[in-house]
Amino acid sequence: MAGKTLHDVRADAFNYVWDNSIAPVVEIEPGDDVELHVRDASDEQITADSGTDAVAALDFSHVNPVSGPVFMKGAKPGDTLAVEILELRPRDWGWTAIIPGFGLLADEFPDPWLRISKVEEDARRVAFAEGITLPFEPFPGTIGVALPEPGAHSVVPPSAWGGNMDIKHLRVGTTLFLPVGVEGALFSVGDTHAAMGDGEVCGTAVEAPMDIAVRLSVRRDTTLAAPQYHLAAGDLARTEAGPHHVTTGVGPDLMEAARGATRAMIEHLGSRHGLDREEAYALCSVACDLKIHEVVDVPNWVVGMFLPETVLEGRS
Amino acid sequence: MAGKTLHDVRADAFNYVWDNSIAPVVEIEPGDDVELHVRDASDEQITADSGTDAVAALDFSHVNPVSGPVFMKGAKPGDTLAVEILELRPRDWGWTAIIPGFGLLADEFPDPWLRISKVEEDARRVAFAEGITLPFEPFPGTIGVALPEPGAHSVVPPSAWGGNMDIKHLRVGTTLFLPVGVEGALFSVGDTHAAMGDGEVCGTAVEAPMDIAVRLSVRRDTTLAAPQYHLAAGDLARTEAGPHHVTTGVGPDLMEAARGATRAMIEHLGSRHGLDREEAYALCSVACDLKIHEVVDVPNWVVGMFLPETVLEGRS
Repeated sequence: MAGKTLHDVRADAFNYVWDNSIAPVVEIEPGDDVELHVRDASDEQITADSGTDAVAALDFSHVNPVSGPVFMKGAKPGDTLAVEILELRPRDWGWTAIIPGFGLLADEFPDPWLRISKVEEDARRVAFAEGITLPFEPFPGTIGVALPEPGAHSVVPPSAWGGNMDIKHLRVGTTLFLPVGVEGALFSVGDTHAAMGDGEVCGTAVEAPMDIAVRLSVRRDTTLAAPQYHLAAGDLARTEAGPHHVTTGVGPDLMEAARGATRAMIEHLGSRHGLDREEAYALCSVACDLKIHEVVDVPNWVVGMFLPETVLEGRS
Repeated sequence: MAGKTLHDVRADAFNYVWDNSIAPVVEIEPGDDVELHVRDASDEQITADSGTDAVAALDFSHVNPVSGPVFMKGAKPGDTLAVEILELRPRDWGWTAIIPGFGLLADEFPDPWLRISKVEEDARRVAFAEGITLPFEPFPGTIGVALPEPGAHSVVPPSAWGGNMDIKHLRVGTTLFLPVGVEGALFSVGDTHAAMGDGEVCGTAVEAPMDIAVRLSVRRDTTLAAPQYHLAAGDLARTEAGPHHVTTGVGPDLMEAARGATRAMIEHLGSRHGLDREEAYALCSVACDLKIHEVVDVPNWVVGMFLPETVLEGRS
């Protein structure tokens, strides 16, 4: 019975907070499909024609709008909302910014920086720079349900209820499982990305407005403490086929180890591939993956940053 | 000129510390191959016939022996030692333990636990439990060079000079780049593993003695702050081809987020696949990968633990 009805959520149904008192825009049955129209994370403050001044002028009172909420009939606290990602359709562009005060190396990158990329949906690629092409692997950076705690909650941090998790693996074919915190779940989605690496270290991906279709259902056989998801066979292999150069950070704090691996990758991209520091930092964010190698060899942990070298194949 | 000479390091040349005053066991030229005979991480305190009592009785004054050191002629501080992993040959067994006081969830797993796995080199698999088969993907958990600081340094924590990094990607075909800290580099290797997940959360892998052959050379075009490595095309794809179930941890501390993802996976392996808690924790360590999804959406970060579901295909 999956996909029996398609609900189109009107484009002006979006919010800047998680708040379980916001009235749902649509009520659906388990197994229904929903299409939502997601604005970019800047809420149209940055456009395809913007320059760096738009980053400096960003008004953070309206960023990261989430489309919804969608009320799932019968969903109750303790249930699990299953979200199958069906389709993501971008426009022809996306933006990546270094925003002062934001990002893993905020202290080292004080100046605003902006890159508009060309998103080529048919060719399934993102033209990030001359000779730097990313695979087009779209996903929603923010996806979740309303918190049970009353009042308005920022959409910036993720929580056990999902939200701004920035999990790049929530691609078409993946099923996300979210704990339900309130009656009807109150599902919303936003912050669609055309490409991103695990970590999103500079704080932004290739931020791109998109239409997204999902299929929602309810499971009562498990109660989750935090989101889980299922990746289809071949998904990781398809996206990690090429050679990788890996930098590491080693030390007693995982965050500092992640910073060390990122700094080393920025240096590598500069010395080996000629990227300037800002472009290198942004490329780490949109293309490179952070993995935890070990967290047990006291007192030092190891984090690796993986550069898929294929993104640089076009450089001379 | 690579591989012009093969040096066989005698099997009794091993040490329990990093100490740059230890006399090298062999001197080699750039491009030479070296074969070393690595003892298991328990230094033969655990054998194929051991029971849990051997874990309880572990004498930590001699664990994690590293074979070497190898003196590379001409290598000087500031150079980079390139280590190409050529071959790893195991015996027919390996061990995995939960060691009291050690591991990501040490407080939650107070009792010693031991599993002897059958390592089937020809079939390239590790029989971990009835119906649970891991791919045989051997690598050295400890690999590095002597620290420039004088005196004896523990072999347990890794450092900027490598050591006990437990990077599962240092498989045959990968090239590791280590910063050189002292004249001759003084390379050693130990702690060979037949299978492990990124993170090594319970503190041990499938620990297995092995012979390892590496090709060593010197690069002077870069000075590294920490180890880096290069993965051949297809390496990640080959090892991540199947479907994955992913748990997440969300919170303001990366280590706690990693713990949350691990706890959720232990629960998942129990409720969905019938594993007891100790076996589930150990399976997380030998088969599941920790990835950092985001470290920028203040104040909460997201860590994912990836279960390759193929390891459980043999369970009814």
